[in-house]
Amino acid sequence: MTSPGQHMAAEIAEQPAVLAGLVARRTEFAEVARVVAQRPPRFALLAARGSSDHAALYAKYLIEVMLGLPAGLVSPSTVTLYGARPDLRDVLLVSVSQSGGSPDLLEFTDTARKQGALTVAVTNTPSSPLHQAAELAVDIGAGTEQAVAATKTYSATLLALYLLVDAARGGDGSAAAGLGELAEQALKAPVQRAIDRYRFVDRIITTGRGYSYATALESALKLAETSYLAARAYSGADLLHGPVAAIDGDTAVLAITGRGRGGSAMHDVLKAVAERGADVLALGSAASEVPAAVRVPVPEVAEELAPVLEVLPVQRLALGLALARGGDPDSPRGLLKVTKTR
Amino acid sequence: MTSPGQHMAAEIAEQPAVLAGLVARRTEFAEVARVVAQRPPRFALLAARGSSDHAALYAKYLIEVMLGLPAGLVSPSTVTLYGARPDLRDVLLVSVSQSGGSPDLLEFTDTARKQGALTVAVTNTPSSPLHQAAELAVDIGAGTEQAVAATKTYSATLLALYLLVDAARGGDGSAAAGLGELAEQALKAPVQRAIDRYRFVDRIITTGRGYSYATALESALKLAETSYLAARAYSGADLLHGPVAAIDGDTAVLAITGRGRGGSAMHDVLKAVAERGADVLALGSAASEVPAAVRVPVPEVAEELAPVLEVLPVQRLALGLALARGGDPDSPRGLLKVTKTR
Repeated sequence: MTSPGQHMAAEIAEQPAVLAGLVARRTEFAEVARVVAQRPPRFALLAARGSSDHAALYAKYLIEVMLGLPAGLVSPSTVTLYGARPDLRDVLLVSVSQSGGSPDLLEFTDTARKQGALTVAVTNTPSSPLHQAAELAVDIGAGTEQAVAATKTYSATLLALYLLVDAARGGDGSAAAGLGELAEQALKAPVQRAIDRYRFVDRIITTGRGYSYATALESALKLAETSYLAARAYSGADLLHGPVAAIDGDTAVLAITGRGRGGSAMHDVLKAVAERGADVLALGSAASEVPAAVRVPVPEVAEELAPVLEVLPVQRLALGLALARGGDPDSPRGLLKVTKTR
Repeated sequence: MTSPGQHMAAEIAEQPAVLAGLVARRTEFAEVARVVAQRPPRFALLAARGSSDHAALYAKYLIEVMLGLPAGLVSPSTVTLYGARPDLRDVLLVSVSQSGGSPDLLEFTDTARKQGALTVAVTNTPSSPLHQAAELAVDIGAGTEQAVAATKTYSATLLALYLLVDAARGGDGSAAAGLGELAEQALKAPVQRAIDRYRFVDRIITTGRGYSYATALESALKLAETSYLAARAYSGADLLHGPVAAIDGDTAVLAITGRGRGGSAMHDVLKAVAERGADVLALGSAASEVPAAVRVPVPEVAEELAPVLEVLPVQRLALGLALARGGDPDSPRGLLKVTKTR
C-alpha cells in the first residue's frame, strides 16, 4: 500500500546523493568528451521529448556559450514523418531520454548516425535501445524512477550534460564539486507558503531567461502534469513581446530569479508583471532581492549550474500542490512514462 | 473613431491580396536564393521573437525536409547576455521580424555576420535596421500593420519563407500559385459556431504535428494575447508524453488536422484527448474527417503550404472570441508591437 505522492517524494529526496554520485563519476564524462574532441563538431543538435526537452534546451545554451558552437533542437518528425535525410557530417547529436525507449528518438538517432553525425546518448537506462544505438553513451545513473513525473532523472540529466560540455572544453567539473551538499540545502527551501497561496490558483505563468529558461519550462510542465494547472512558460523576452497582456491579478507568475546574467535580465519582466497586478513567486538565488509576494531562495552556484538547484524546490512545490489539491502525482490521469509516438 | 477589432479585421481581410502579391514577386526570392546557392550553407539558424518565432519554426521544418540541412532556432541571449561568439562559417542565418526593430535580433544578426554566417533578413520594413544589417534581405510586402496582434505579417512571412526555401532548391514556387484565391476561401471557413461554443472557455490546448505544429503555436499565442485565454500549444507527440493528463471535460482542444503526414499522425492524439472527454475543435483540410465537437475545414494545398491557410480561420476565431468576451484586440492590455529586450 503506497500513499499519494510517496514515490515522487522519495525520488525528490534522493537527488543530493544522485548528484554527488554523478560528480564522483565525472572522469567517465571526460572519456566521452575526449572522443568528441578528436572529431570536433561544427554544429550540435539535441534530440529529446518532454522533460528531457528542457534539459536539451539547457544543453543548447551550454554548448553555445561554453563551446562556441551553434546548436539546435531536433524536430524528430522531419525524419520520422517526412523522411528527411539531412547531411549531418561534422554534427554532434546528443539524444536525451531517461528511458532510452522513445521510438522517434531512436529512429532519429539511427538515421543521424547513418547521415554522418557523431551520436551521443544520455540516458538513465544503459540497457536501452537508444543507449546501444548511439556511438557514445553516458549513463546518468539516477536509479529506477518509479514516479511518473520525472524528478531525479531531470536534475541528473542536467548535471550529466553540464559535465559532458565542461569536459569537452577541457574542464574538470570542479564548479560542480559541492553540488550534492547544495542540493540538500536547496531541498530545504521553504515552499509551504507557496503551496498554501496557490492551492486554488487556476493559472500560472512561469518565466526565466538564459539558462534558467529551461527551469521555467520544466516548472510549467511539472505543475501541469501533476496538479492539472493551466501552466505556461515564456522566456522573459517573449513574455514582454505579447503574452504579458494575458496577465492580471488572477495570474500567478513563477519567476526564476538568480544572481547571474539571466536573472539580472529579469528585472524588466518583474516590473511589467507587477504593473499588471500579478502575484509573483520569485525562486532562485536572488529571490530575496526582488519584489515578490512569495520568495523561495535557492543556494548560489555558478550560473551555468543554477538550473540543477532551482528545479528542486519547484518539484516540492508541484508535489505539495498536487497533494493539497487532492491528487496523486504518482498516478496522474493519463501520464505515460515512455513516449510511443513516431 | 474606430470600433473594437477594426484594424485586426481589416488586416485579416487583406491577406488574399498580400499573399497573391508575394507570389507575383517570387522571382525576387529566386535572386536571394541564387546568392545562397553560390555559398551553400551546411547548417541553418533562425532568429525570431513572438509570432515570428512560429514562422521560424515552420521554416526550420522546410529547411530540414526540402533542403536536407540541419537547422536550429537561435536563443539570442547566448550572444546578447552571455557574450557567446560561436563559429558561424557555413551557417545560413535567417532573421525573421516584421518590424525589423528588435534590438536583440539586430545584435545577434550583427554578431552572426561578423562570425562568418551568411545572413538573410525577412522583414516587413525595408527601412529597418535589421533589413540593413543583414547581407541579404527579403521584404514580405504586407504593408503597415496597425493592429497589435500580427495577422497579415504572419501569413506573409510564412509564404516568403516558403518561396525562399523553394527557390533555394531550384523550385519556381508553382505550388503557391493559387494561394491568393485559396486564402479567400479559407477566410470563409465557418468559425461562428466555435466562437459561440468557446465564449466562456477558460482553458484551451492547441496541438499539431509536423509543419502544422507552427499553426498550433501561433494559435495559442493569438488566443492568449487577444482573448486572455490560458492557451498552450503542444506538438501532438509531446502532448501524449505527459500534458494529456491535464486535459478533462473542461478543456477545449484545438487540433490542427490536415490531410498530409502531420495531420495523419494526429489520429492517436485525437483518440487520447477524446478519451479524456476534451471538447475538440478540428481545424484543417481533414477537419471533416475526424471526430470533433466543432469542425473548421480549410482548403487543401500542398502540405508544406498548409500553415499559410490554416492560420486564417484561427485569426478570425481569435478576433471573434475577443469581441464576444468584450475585449478590443486592437488595444489589448499591455501588448507591445516591438520587443525591446536584449
